[in-house]
Amino acid sequence: MYGELALFSGRANPGLTQEICDYLDVPLQGVSIIDYPNENIFVKLHSSVRGQDVFIIQPLTSPVNQSIMELLIMIDTLKRASAGRITAVMPYYAYARSDKKDQPRVPITARLLADLITVAGADRYMTIDLHAGQIQGFFSIPGDELTAFHILSDYLKKKQIPQATIVSADLGFAKKARNFAEKLRLPMAFIEKRRADDGMDVEDLTLIGQVEGRNCIIVDDEVDTGGSMTEAVWLVKANGARDIYLSFAHALFSDPAVERLRELPIKEIVTTNTVYLPPEKRLRNMTVLSVAPLLGEVIRRTHLGISVGEWLKDV
Amino acid sequence: MYGELALFSGRANPGLTQEICDYLDVPLQGVSIIDYPNENIFVKLHSSVRGQDVFIIQPLTSPVNQSIMELLIMIDTLKRASAGRITAVMPYYAYARSDKKDQPRVPITARLLADLITVAGADRYMTIDLHAGQIQGFFSIPGDELTAFHILSDYLKKKQIPQATIVSADLGFAKKARNFAEKLRLPMAFIEKRRADDGMDVEDLTLIGQVEGRNCIIVDDEVDTGGSMTEAVWLVKANGARDIYLSFAHALFSDPAVERLRELPIKEIVTTNTVYLPPEKRLRNMTVLSVAPLLGEVIRRTHLGISVGEWLKDV
Amino acid sequence: MYGELALFSGRANPGLTQEICDYLDVPLQGVSIIDYPNENIFVKLHSSVRGQDVFIIQPLTSPVNQSIMELLIMIDTLKRASAGRITAVMPYYAYARSDKKDQPRVPITARLLADLITVAGADRYMTIDLHAGQIQGFFSIPGDELTAFHILSDYLKKKQIPQATIVSADLGFAKKARNFAEKLRLPMAFIEKRRADDGMDVEDLTLIGQVEGRNCIIVDDEVDTGGSMTEAVWLVKANGARDIYLSFAHALFSDPAVERLRELPIKEIVTTNTVYLPPEKRLRNMTVLSVAPLLGEVIRRTHLGISVGEWLKDV
Amino acid sequence: MYGELALFSGRANPGLTQEICDYLDVPLQGVSIIDYPNENIFVKLHSSVRGQDVFIIQPLTSPVNQSIMELLIMIDTLKRASAGRITAVMPYYAYARSDKKDQPRVPITARLLADLITVAGADRYMTIDLHAGQIQGFFSIPGDELTAFHILSDYLKKKQIPQATIVSADLGFAKKARNFAEKLRLPMAFIEKRRADDGMDVEDLTLIGQVEGRNCIIVDDEVDTGGSMTEAVWLVKANGARDIYLSFAHALFSDPAVERLRELPIKEIVTTNTVYLPPEKRLRNMTVLSVAPLLGEVIRRTHLGISVGEWLKDV
Amino acid sequence: MYGELALFSGRANPGLTQEICDYLDVPLQGVSIIDYPNENIFVKLHSSVRGQDVFIIQPLTSPVNQSIMELLIMIDTLKRASAGRITAVMPYYAYARSDKKDQPRVPITARLLADLITVAGADRYMTIDLHAGQIQGFFSIPGDELTAFHILSDYLKKKQIPQATIVSADLGFAKKARNFAEKLRLPMAFIEKRRADDGMDVEDLTLIGQVEGRNCIIVDDEVDTGGSMTEAVWLVKANGARDIYLSFAHALFSDPAVERLRELPIKEIVTTNTVYLPPEKRLRNMTVLSVAPLLGEVIRRTHLGISVGEWLKDV
Amino acid sequence: MYGELALFSGRANPGLTQEICDYLDVPLQGVSIIDYPNENIFVKLHSSVRGQDVFIIQPLTSPVNQSIMELLIMIDTLKRASAGRITAVMPYYAYARSDKKDQPRVPITARLLADLITVAGADRYMTIDLHAGQIQGFFSIPGDELTAFHILSDYLKKKQIPQATIVSADLGFAKKARNFAEKLRLPMAFIEKRRADDGMDVEDLTLIGQVEGRNCIIVDDEVDTGGSMTEAVWLVKANGARDIYLSFAHALFSDPAVERLRELPIKEIVTTNTVYLPPEKRLRNMTVLSVAPLLGEVIRRTHLGISVGEWLKDV
Repeated sequence: MYGELALFSGRANPGLTQEICDYLDVPLQGVSIIDYPNENIFVKLHSSVRGQDVFIIQPLTSPVNQSIMELLIMIDTLKRASAGRITAVMPYYAYARSDKKDQPRVPITARLLADLITVAGADRYMTIDLHAGQIQGFFSIPGDELTAFHILSDYLKKKQIPQATIVSADLGFAKKARNFAEKLRLPMAFIEKRRADDGMDVEDLTLIGQVEGRNCIIVDDEVDTGGSMTEAVWLVKANGARDIYLSFAHALFSDPAVERLRELPIKEIVTTNTVYLPPEKRLRNMTVLSVAPLLGEVIRRTHLGISVGEWLKDV
Repeated sequence: MYGELALFSGRANPGLTQEICDYLDVPLQGVSIIDYPNENIFVKLHSSVRGQDVFIIQPLTSPVNQSIMELLIMIDTLKRASAGRITAVMPYYAYARSDKKDQPRVPITARLLADLITVAGADRYMTIDLHAGQIQGFFSIPGDELTAFHILSDYLKKKQIPQATIVSADLGFAKKARNFAEKLRLPMAFIEKRRADDGMDVEDLTLIGQVEGRNCIIVDDEVDTGGSMTEAVWLVKANGARDIYLSFAHALFSDPAVERLRELPIKEIVTTNTVYLPPEKRLRNMTVLSVAPLLGEVIRRTHLGISVGEWLKDV
Repeated sequence: MYGELALFSGRANPGLTQEICDYLDVPLQGVSIIDYPNENIFVKLHSSVRGQDVFIIQPLTSPVNQSIMELLIMIDTLKRASAGRITAVMPYYAYARSDKKDQPRVPITARLLADLITVAGADRYMTIDLHAGQIQGFFSIPGDELTAFHILSDYLKKKQIPQATIVSADLGFAKKARNFAEKLRLPMAFIEKRRADDGMDVEDLTLIGQVEGRNCIIVDDEVDTGGSMTEAVWLVKANGARDIYLSFAHALFSDPAVERLRELPIKEIVTTNTVYLPPEKRLRNMTVLSVAPLLGEVIRRTHLGISVGEWLKDV
Repeated sequence: MYGELALFSGRANPGLTQEICDYLDVPLQGVSIIDYPNENIFVKLHSSVRGQDVFIIQPLTSPVNQSIMELLIMIDTLKRASAGRITAVMPYYAYARSDKKDQPRVPITARLLADLITVAGADRYMTIDLHAGQIQGFFSIPGDELTAFHILSDYLKKKQIPQATIVSADLGFAKKARNFAEKLRLPMAFIEKRRADDGMDVEDLTLIGQVEGRNCIIVDDEVDTGGSMTEAVWLVKANGARDIYLSFAHALFSDPAVERLRELPIKEIVTTNTVYLPPEKRLRNMTVLSVAPLLGEVIRRTHLGISVGEWLKDV
Repeated sequence: MYGELALFSGRANPGLTQEICDYLDVPLQGVSIIDYPNENIFVKLHSSVRGQDVFIIQPLTSPVNQSIMELLIMIDTLKRASAGRITAVMPYYAYARSDKKDQPRVPITARLLADLITVAGADRYMTIDLHAGQIQGFFSIPGDELTAFHILSDYLKKKQIPQATIVSADLGFAKKARNFAEKLRLPMAFIEKRRADDGMDVEDLTLIGQVEGRNCIIVDDEVDTGGSMTEAVWLVKANGARDIYLSFAHALFSDPAVERLRELPIKEIVTTNTVYLPPEKRLRNMTVLSVAPLLGEVIRRTHLGISVGEWLKDV
Repeated sequence: MYGELALFSGRANPGLTQEICDYLDVPLQGVSIIDYPNENIFVKLHSSVRGQDVFIIQPLTSPVNQSIMELLIMIDTLKRASAGRITAVMPYYAYARSDKKDQPRVPITARLLADLITVAGADRYMTIDLHAGQIQGFFSIPGDELTAFHILSDYLKKKQIPQATIVSADLGFAKKARNFAEKLRLPMAFIEKRRADDGMDVEDLTLIGQVEGRNCIIVDDEVDTGGSMTEAVWLVKANGARDIYLSFAHALFSDPAVERLRELPIKEIVTTNTVYLPPEKRLRNMTVLSVAPLLGEVIRRTHLGISVGEWLKDV
């Protein structure tokens, strides 16, 4: 239906792209991406893409705004080079927390971003574990939101952690935390955060549910600076938890996340490689599971026009 | 900036429209809405709207699909009659639970609906308590999502229910339930629902948090058939709760909601009139607060081009 | 060029869809269409449609507004499920009489509907005997307006009704009535309707042309409540007509059409199955010709990318 | 609501524009429209139009394609010069007979034209007596289709032609011809044209209805080369008609219309000035009624944002 | 990827289309293009184009506005006939000098034209030597701007004109003139034109650089009326040039270009056949190189989805 | 026509915004622009902008991609906060050299950028001295490209530099350089750059025209790293120039521009403040003219809907 499969990589996570190429056993397509002295990004494809079925792998991570512009410029280049179909593969989608106006006179940048990607010329998108699933609806083009849930929960299940409890680090993640609890057949607890009575900036944390004497698996979608996670760990600890595990899809690790995590009494941190993690950000107690087989298989099926849903059911 | 203010009503909740007109002290504009024998809806405005600043009040409630088409046809009529600006005021937004693909090969109807409203010619939208705030981002036109939170929580606060606990009826509402708890300075509990181990269709309910001997205010965004609410009430009762209050914005009350609610040991049901409630659906223990002043004031401010946000802060 | 052919059916006329599948010798694709208690329609495809060439068969008939929303939601589902091409096959197009502003401040709903179908994601449309051929131009996407004219006129021709006259039931149908007269080599007469001099609501009917002693074939595009047809029959009868035949493409039959038709002195009613006719609406003197071979063949040719026009010339 | 009223004229009918300016008592705005030697049209406005409410008067008449491009370029100029609102006033709309695909593989140019006008930047359109009213629906922007029906029928009514019959020159005009008959309280007759049995190109004309000994008013929407009108005149004459009058809105008069009309036994030709008629095309028996007051008044009302519909009812 | 290759010709340069068909060894597709007496252009394709990969060859030359409308109508016809992909091949792009607002209140017609072509339904465009390369960016659809530079410069190089200098006829062409100089390894000179001190309309011409005793190749992109070229020739002659050659891609030759060129002391005029040149416009000293192989090869590669860029490098 | 004037500043050149506010005697509107630790930019307006006529001043300068995203997010915020009209004022437009495909498989980022700004919700744009005027045509929304030409040339004219010559630093700037020569009534010279015969990377520079013993004013549109300017200065020096002046609108000054300029034998550098120049980048021989009065006056006139063109003529 479309021409040959062609994979391109932005500069945000080339290692992941290479893993996907290896999974698919296709070569990475050549492209020069140059920062001119005036910071303008220049893109030149090394060979023809006429009619091809192109996937650009680019998580929208640090430097975030540059990664976004780079993706947009790559899409424009491919469109004008007459690619047959262009899929923007964003293992991490930026600005996802700016997904509604929860106060007056703020943007909905996650929608803006969907529009930018579409106007640039993408025909489809692919992403992993959006902060809110509704962001799918910000796109009018078709796409696939995949999830690292199976990868993370399978790993945790195999560990057979005894007497464990799933702790949702944020009430906004409560429903997804429930999925972990359901799959691992574990009880749940919640951390509730509210503004303290006596001031605006201080927050009161409460643990709802039982963790006394239990091993706790604290789950969330991402860790940014690690502030909430740090509070969560100390709160469950203060409530009598035994071993503590963290599990989240996106290891964003903005400063000072790594410093904070290093000092916490955590048995294991389980995450994925949607975001590029340089060696200095990899702690000893960190297990980084690869999303490359997931992305690779879905790319393969999308290219061949065979069911993604059927396969996901069996994962 | 725009011409005169003009309010039109669809047929879904004319009483609410009249209340808004009364609040604003403006007459309701005349329009004939006719169902032809072939079920085609025909709309004819009674007088000119050239350049006027038009608001159509139409909650997207039963008969849902007809209410939607009626709204779209009214917008088309107004657009082609050269209205200056058209705001679709939907105190209840339909299809809001179809807001993401949480399984393969399903629609995102809430986004589709936003596109239908936009292509018909609406310049702005206004709504109350969307099932997910992200639905705002399904619109590319500007709009206002208002909330009945202040109306409901102010009412509850004034009641000064002693030894109360806020119970979130659904994990997806946990974060908004927290706002009630924060404002009323009450502790929280959660109802967790998961598929039972032994089958697909039966669900296990668990209460997380303490309700023993406490008065419970169960909160949610809407009550449809009342199934979840019924389970929630019996669960908190079984866990030793004393008086039970329900609070939710949208009294959708599809059958057999009213029958179910009538038989529950509930002290008071607090809701609003976003959805038209015929007398036979109004139970004795039901308090229906009006959103007309809220909508009226925001319409007034939108028309005059003065701040909505400033006013909402003071509510 | 596109993937496999896949046919889906909305709920408006599943029998017709099955006939088309039989003609094409392809299986009907599985889809669940559910009305939730809150009247929201939910759609789930049973298997993958990635890249496939999909046709949805859905005449926009009673319940009209629900049939429209159902079609739109199916299109959205197919688009987001990455169908290769989506054709909305509407053997009957609703709101077709709302095709222009013939008075101030009314909608052009037939155009609105075309925009809704397009924004939902249809790539093409297919329909039969639009009330006005110009509705084709309401679509910016390509499409095919087919006609039941050949089916109906071939049938009538074979009957070799002697001394017959074609009577156009409505002046708006005069040009198409001429085609029947031309093909059957018969003379014509017209029914002219105008407001009576002495009032607004009563209408004067005049027959222009000769029907005295002749068999009359009254032709129109559709029969809705049957009011005009009833008047037409009695008028030609009063002018001395002998046997009377009716011929029209769309048997809409809103109440009380069937009751009216039952009591008329009509020899035969010739129509098609574009609209689902339940057994209780089928009168003894009714001949219902199938449009399934027509739709089936055009779908086949559209799918294979071969000429539709060439084939139609030979029909 | 919008800035000052500003009228511009294309080169197709400057006399009509001047009449409209006189009616409105506003000056014609200055614009240079130049044909370069390479036939490129260049447009330059003489003064600022920032925020103004601009109307461009341009019937799409000979040289047709140049008149169209001229209109589009003027719209682009006005848009980029930041006009507040741009209305394309086209007293005659070209390509209106290309309004549907009545055979395979032909264009729908009337829709294309609507899209061209819209993409160029027009906010509204205004036109008179479209060949088919449905062309209104080809536009997504709002607009007004006015009619010369009142102007023509008032004039004919005042003449009090005795024993007259309205003859519809074409079956496609039958419904509009009925309006003349209804207003003047006259009987009707129809001319039916069909392909002759023995060949493709020859046509058989039949008169349906009575004209023997009656004065005939033959009505149609426009006269192009005058071929059909010539046949119609001779046909009614051959059927015993006495005096013959012609009435139509648009005097397109492509060659050899004037020669043909000159030789026909017509008592009076009643038409309007939507199309520029040079002196040599004005026959002695021709009455040219002006549409300038109609256009002027509607422009005035559109500019002021007051009802057009109310006024039209009283005309 | 797309269906069969199908070439259509507008009426602007059928000879060039035939040359391209010959190069590609494909038949020219049949199409009737008719000018009705009312100047409306009617188009009818002779056979089906469903799914085909269609190229329309139409330089936008005299009659310019008619050629544009003809192209747009052909595109609409092809789109509605369900062509798989439509490429507008415009060897000469009209209105290219109207590419920016260099004074207030003028249009940017070259952008307007790109929008017209796009809204009509073209999927791609192809053109040769735009007046400004930036016009590529006026299109949002992909396309190819080809150049006759290689054809012209190869020819000139083979002539091995001794002691030659490249003269840029216009400062706006200076950068492209440099490419000629670079490829032929020749020095350059420039003609500078400025308004004279004493008036608006007279212009002062200056030659910058050395031409004394040298053979001069005056280069530009097109020759319209030949006014600038005439001045250029006399200026270099006055500065002591010996033989004079002209080279330009587009021989527009509006009157009185041919008369002017005939009287100039030019050794040879080197140009191409992008614009149709009737025999009477072909002077003896004119060499007309064909762009058919260039267009043919790029069409072939576009159709097959193989690299155009690779091939152009080797030309 | 629009509400109150409201000026907002991005973070790229707040000093310039303040100067414009001072010129217009309006306060700068408050907005919080925050970089979150995850580099996401967050924007919150301090007060209501409902219906206001908003201008955002943001040159797209270093950090370029962040400045772009910041502008886009501000536009989205303003759109969703119901601003009446949004004008993006970009005194410097980034990616302007990426304005055409001059080689295969590269982007046209300047067009992409125009689309991003438009889809975000800008109603108008304003900019100064685009690298190519045609970039105006990349926008479909109206806008104003202003020029610093009058500011720079007036300043140079007043200096009355004797025996001066205008030198165009780049052939692409030749036509604009001519405008300086024309206004100052000076002769011209050109610098021609071409690839050397013996290699790809080395370039040969030639001076065409006379500079021996003359004071040279080298003109260009911007100075980025200063490489070309450095070569130009040494070339004219080597050809016997006396005093050297540089004049350009945009002092981009990417490293090592300032170091290079410091060491050149230049009498005076004349530029503007479109780009923020920190004190350490301001050399002693640099004259920075302000564009604030130009932008301020055009903003004032745009807001009031009075002619910009009239005023520019008199500057």
